[in-house]
Amino acid sequence: MKDSAAKCRAAGPPEPERSEPPEPPCAPARRGTARSGRTRDAIVDLAIGLFNARGTSAVTTNHIAAELGISPGNLYYHFRNKEEIVRAAYGRFGEECRALLETPVTGGAVEIFRHYTAGTFDLMLRWRFFYEDMAELCRRDPDLAGDMADLQRRFVAHLAETLCRLRRTGIVSEGVADLDLRLLADNIWLVSRGFWEFARNGAPEGFRPEEAIRDGVRHIFALARPCLTPPARQALDRSLARDGG
Amino acid sequence: MKDSAAKCRAAGPPEPERSEPPEPPCAPARRGTARSGRTRDAIVDLAIGLFNARGTSAVTTNHIAAELGISPGNLYYHFRNKEEIVRAAYGRFGEECRALLETPVTGGAVEIFRHYTAGTFDLMLRWRFFYEDMAELCRRDPDLAGDMADLQRRFVAHLAETLCRLRRTGIVSEGVADLDLRLLADNIWLVSRGFWEFARNGAPEGFRPEEAIRDGVRHIFALARPCLTPPARQALDRSLARDGG
Repeated sequence: MKDSAAKCRAAGPPEPERSEPPEPPCAPARRGTARSGRTRDAIVDLAIGLFNARGTSAVTTNHIAAELGISPGNLYYHFRNKEEIVRAAYGRFGEECRALLETPVTGGAVEIFRHYTAGTFDLMLRWRFFYEDMAELCRRDPDLAGDMADLQRRFVAHLAETLCRLRRTGIVSEGVADLDLRLLADNIWLVSRGFWEFARNGAPEGFRPEEAIRDGVRHIFALARPCLTPPARQALDRSLARDGG
Repeated sequence: MKDSAAKCRAAGPPEPERSEPPEPPCAPARRGTARSGRTRDAIVDLAIGLFNARGTSAVTTNHIAAELGISPGNLYYHFRNKEEIVRAAYGRFGEECRALLETPVTGGAVEIFRHYTAGTFDLMLRWRFFYEDMAELCRRDPDLAGDMADLQRRFVAHLAETLCRLRRTGIVSEGVADLDLRLLADNIWLVSRGFWEFARNGAPEGFRPEEAIRDGVRHIFALARPCLTPPARQALDRSLARDGG
């Protein structure tokens, strides 16, 4: 993995941030050609990799243009500043989150648990700069702050609804109150949200993303386990024992 | 509360970061007089307030000197750069964490639960820039990253030990395995660690720290509840119902 967290850690202090050049007074209108769209996508692709590897505050539009081998002017044709690139990346991240939530999952406790945990940890791995730099990104762009808060609310609401549905289908115990399901949904979000940083801090001898994901799955299961019916609990216990997470 | 998160949110985008002036080639040796110590403490006090209100990356040594009404030269007499001020603040934070962990707590489930949750949320309120900007601070200062990772490990280990002790004294159920107590300790850390940001994102109409703390306590209790003996559970249920957290 090119932009692994381990590499990021070893890379030393980031370069100081350069100020963004101001937008030209008569910026040309963005044309919607296929080639223009490809360059735009390539800028966002490359930016995501750099943000993940170095952190968003250490990456400037000049770095992105240089790594992509295009002129800063060409980059400014597509994006006025770094915040616009971050917002374009956020658009993709939001779509992936929605896709994870809206994919219909059939099957029992094991399939449903696997779908959400694998999906969540996969998002975390590929979009870790959003998880790590959220406070700073939100301070720099209040619109993004609003979008991120909205995503959290929708994600947690969807989790709580899913847990209510699982209570009707005999996976979550009937005796678990709505309030407890809401607290469980919040806690699943909180543990998932912080797990990346937690696992990195807990691995001074070298961080292994695959191990961290397996360990994260065990932590999420520990949260949900007391709310499950005995058959669902046993099915998940067996499944986790089989492949270690 | 002067530097409340609500004020921080409303303050708009941060000022662009100015680069730090280089250290003078013949920086004078730091003298250990009482007056010098007071200025040093005042710099750290003021910096903590600014970091909490605006985020660490938006605050420069020049801002700190200007707000304190001292010359940049006077500030550089005490600290070579912002990272040194952050590290001095971290020293105080670490001491407060140790004090929370090492204070002997007597009493039953209620007293012990109150001690840790009130202490943790109080730390979170007063040191929120460490919680919010951790990834960026760690990238800028690998020594600080090591110290923070170490603090996490010690905090979680202490929590796990405390839970084992509570199993011997009839507060945690005998049937809860060591591995489950370790997962619970990790999850308590993760939920506490992320709760500040979570509560802020979840309160689009205005964030109230005191409500957030009460809600945080309920979330921590939801984690621990399944592992408690019935008498401990009932005592905590009653206590939380009485004062809403």
